[in-house]
Amino acid sequence: MRFIIAQQNKNDVIEKIVSLAKRRGFVFQSSEIYGGLNGCWDYGPLGVELLKNIKEEWWKFMTYREDVEGLDAAILMHPRVWEASGHVENFTDPMIDCKQCKARFRVDTLAEQLNEKKKEKAFEAFVEANQDKKDKIDELIKTVDEKEDKFEKFLENEELAYDLLLQLNCPQCGTKESFTKPRKFNLMFKTFLGPVEDTKNAIYLRPETAQGIFVNFLNVLNSSRQKLPFGIAQIGKAFRNEINTKNFLFRTREFEQMEMQYFVKPEDDKKHYDDWKAKRLQWFKDLGMTPDKLRYHDHPEDKLAHYAKEATDIEYEFPFGWGEIEGIHNRTDFDLGRHQEYSGKSQQYFDEASKEKFVPYIIETSAGASRSFMAFLVDAYNEEEVNNETRVVLKFHPKLAPIKAAIFPLVNKDGIPEVSRKIEAELRPYLRVFYDDKGAVGRRYRRQDEIGTPFCITIDHQTLEDNAVTVRNRDTMEQERVSQDELLTYLLKKLK
Amino acid sequence: MRFIIAQQNKNDVIEKIVSLAKRRGFVFQSSEIYGGLNGCWDYGPLGVELLKNIKEEWWKFMTYREDVEGLDAAILMHPRVWEASGHVENFTDPMIDCKQCKARFRVDTLAEQLNEKKKEKAFEAFVEANQDKKDKIDELIKTVDEKEDKFEKFLENEELAYDLLLQLNCPQCGTKESFTKPRKFNLMFKTFLGPVEDTKNAIYLRPETAQGIFVNFLNVLNSSRQKLPFGIAQIGKAFRNEINTKNFLFRTREFEQMEMQYFVKPEDDKKHYDDWKAKRLQWFKDLGMTPDKLRYHDHPEDKLAHYAKEATDIEYEFPFGWGEIEGIHNRTDFDLGRHQEYSGKSQQYFDEASKEKFVPYIIETSAGASRSFMAFLVDAYNEEEVNNETRVVLKFHPKLAPIKAAIFPLVNKDGIPEVSRKIEAELRPYLRVFYDDKGAVGRRYRRQDEIGTPFCITIDHQTLEDNAVTVRNRDTMEQERVSQDELLTYLLKKLK
Repeated sequence: MRFIIAQQNKNDVIEKIVSLAKRRGFVFQSSEIYGGLNGCWDYGPLGVELLKNIKEEWWKFMTYREDVEGLDAAILMHPRVWEASGHVENFTDPMIDCKQCKARFRVDTLAEQLNEKKKEKAFEAFVEANQDKKDKIDELIKTVDEKEDKFEKFLENEELAYDLLLQLNCPQCGTKESFTKPRKFNLMFKTFLGPVEDTKNAIYLRPETAQGIFVNFLNVLNSSRQKLPFGIAQIGKAFRNEINTKNFLFRTREFEQMEMQYFVKPEDDKKHYDDWKAKRLQWFKDLGMTPDKLRYHDHPEDKLAHYAKEATDIEYEFPFGWGEIEGIHNRTDFDLGRHQEYSGKSQQYFDEASKEKFVPYIIETSAGASRSFMAFLVDAYNEEEVNNETRVVLKFHPKLAPIKAAIFPLVNKDGIPEVSRKIEAELRPYLRVFYDDKGAVGRRYRRQDEIGTPFCITIDHQTLEDNAVTVRNRDTMEQERVSQDELLTYLLKKLK
Repeated sequence: MRFIIAQQNKNDVIEKIVSLAKRRGFVFQSSEIYGGLNGCWDYGPLGVELLKNIKEEWWKFMTYREDVEGLDAAILMHPRVWEASGHVENFTDPMIDCKQCKARFRVDTLAEQLNEKKKEKAFEAFVEANQDKKDKIDELIKTVDEKEDKFEKFLENEELAYDLLLQLNCPQCGTKESFTKPRKFNLMFKTFLGPVEDTKNAIYLRPETAQGIFVNFLNVLNSSRQKLPFGIAQIGKAFRNEINTKNFLFRTREFEQMEMQYFVKPEDDKKHYDDWKAKRLQWFKDLGMTPDKLRYHDHPEDKLAHYAKEATDIEYEFPFGWGEIEGIHNRTDFDLGRHQEYSGKSQQYFDEASKEKFVPYIIETSAGASRSFMAFLVDAYNEEEVNNETRVVLKFHPKLAPIKAAIFPLVNKDGIPEVSRKIEAELRPYLRVFYDDKGAVGRRYRRQDEIGTPFCITIDHQTLEDNAVTVRNRDTMEQERVSQDELLTYLLKKLK
């Protein structure tokens, strides 16, 4: 799938979050000391925990049930897989080169780099120069409604795009009429298996994890003794050689997916599609994502992908607009049918009750782990006014918070550090905890708020007398005395 | 690192395990329906759980401590990283082509394909044809001791290898004197970032995860407020374009690593090296690996890699011989020093106590997740004689077992299924359980033994009266009555 998000002016929230993410160790630019690698990001100490927690919640939700099996397929797959899937032929972006400076551009995003005036001027010149195609131009103009960009619409038209492009100067060298005709550029990363860099040894980094599930349908069916309906779930990396990466973790070249393919009888497709559609939206809500910032975007029938009978996006309202974080698709028997055709191996299922053989339909739930990470991070970000000061707080669901509890000895003397360390040692086998004995306690609270730690435990002189500690709640900022003996149970219960 | 394992005749244990792994859903050949992709494997429903459990145990052991931070860096990195690391220059195998049939061979493994007689004959012809180099040949022969293969030793010699190779016929087409001179072939998978397939856009799939840690040293240091000594731990995939893949999961093109880099003061290197060396071997033992099948293989000083001051392999005795499953290395300041040089960014650490600035030393623990998986699987495999029948049982440590408990209703009537399903529902949120109501109970036990499920719970008529179930232990095969109310606690305790 290719995702299109509503382009709005980014506000500075994203900038603040990117900065916090770097400063506190959620996300770093990949290979930063070498100037970075565009479209790739590294998850730091807190980021890796948040990402792990999201993946673990997904895994439990999706596979701790009788009818779903897990899988972890290789990133490198046989090249025929991508012929069968249609990626070799269709997973392309239209590209043009400048004949003068050899720079390469993606046609469908060129318009983004131009201002309205330039676009209008180029369009006028294009109409002037193509009087012989006037009928076609008029016809296409009629289909453009007010909200749409006329220029972009013409670039989408295979026949007219090139004529319009000829009216533009190359954005890099400024030469006029210097573009080649648009050509298809495949978005899969290509490499070679073995020492010979030869077409016949070309393989690809998978652009989606789904195909690893499709080609293992029979392996999983036979080894697990499942019956329809049943699903196969997988978390793993995928790669797309995007020309334009953007919006932080939203469109990257390397990313992680959490996909589940549910194999069903053809006649039951609608039922399971609706069921998973509801379940998956609820999953985000149950992990604390703001309900008002979540919506479905059902694909209209005329915009469905070639494999889909019905499809919806679960969208989150990012600061830059609504963006897809998960897709639910009724893929019909397209995938297994294609692999049956290309591999010559029957992908049919034998239904014992009806004694019938058929290729199952597939209902797919395809979530971005990296995109979910970004949505959970953005959604958790809050700035609050507390005692005339701004409190930055990440209100993660406790299950997702990278650190569950921080331990603060109020002073570093009188046996308080010893008790604090003892508490730390007791909690650590069960929870990720952070010990902080530096600076004023208010500052320590702020540091934990900023990374979303749900509980801060303070050990003071009174603790030495009554064996109780103060537990402060991140969101309410209320404090509670809890007996040392009950602390672990108290926390585990709250973290459920 | 490149690993060399003692080559012994594989016995059929590996074949049995590979077959079991496929039949029961631990490991499938990647893209099997298309004939497979050499050197790549997919983890099936049980395999993905075993692998997850191994990784989770490692993660907890390595990062649930105050002095180690986690990381998850991108697989795609800036190409300068691999210049700094030395991989562009040194991560190579010597290769030759047959001029006639264009087949390509790895020089250092060519000898494996020849029998003793052929080798001796070729060697004699080589000596005969190279009388002018007699002194050099005699000198080299002196260094070969009895246990070594003279032929291999000469192939390692850059000056003489080609002359020796000329005495061989091409193994594919049989042509004589048809080889090109040996050339270095880089084992990194190469691909291109962006649409132009140009040398300047070439990037590599990481051949090891370690570099992602090195280049993030300062990011982690600054965001975590750690002080020396501290470590950074990471689990992730790496890729090597191996010419000869072999031994199931042991040498593959795509694999997973679990690496930790511990940054220390140069003068403390020995202490931390010894400490981690001991800790890491113990980790395998604590997870139930047979102590007798584990050993260190310390690298002699003259065989150390260019970056290492001291190095050891933790080896496991596979059916095909001893093989490395983890390496512990004192990498000195080589890595940070090189990245400092190549990036121009200081990688020095400021020690507050001594007011000194220096580049830290690194003690590395580098385990293969895929190799550990294979070692745990092989080690767990047992065949036992029980009542004159062979019982195949995988004796996984309960923490590693893919399924923790199986639930068997003894008969499918009289309310027994209902009680069984209730027990299943109670356990499922906490444990991976498997419900099986098909076939004789003896057969059901055998199916669970074969996949290493530590506990089988039988629900029978008596359960309806006394609310107790029978719990059967996989290893002892002893049975115990446990009250339904205490079942979860009982299991959780045993699974610790």
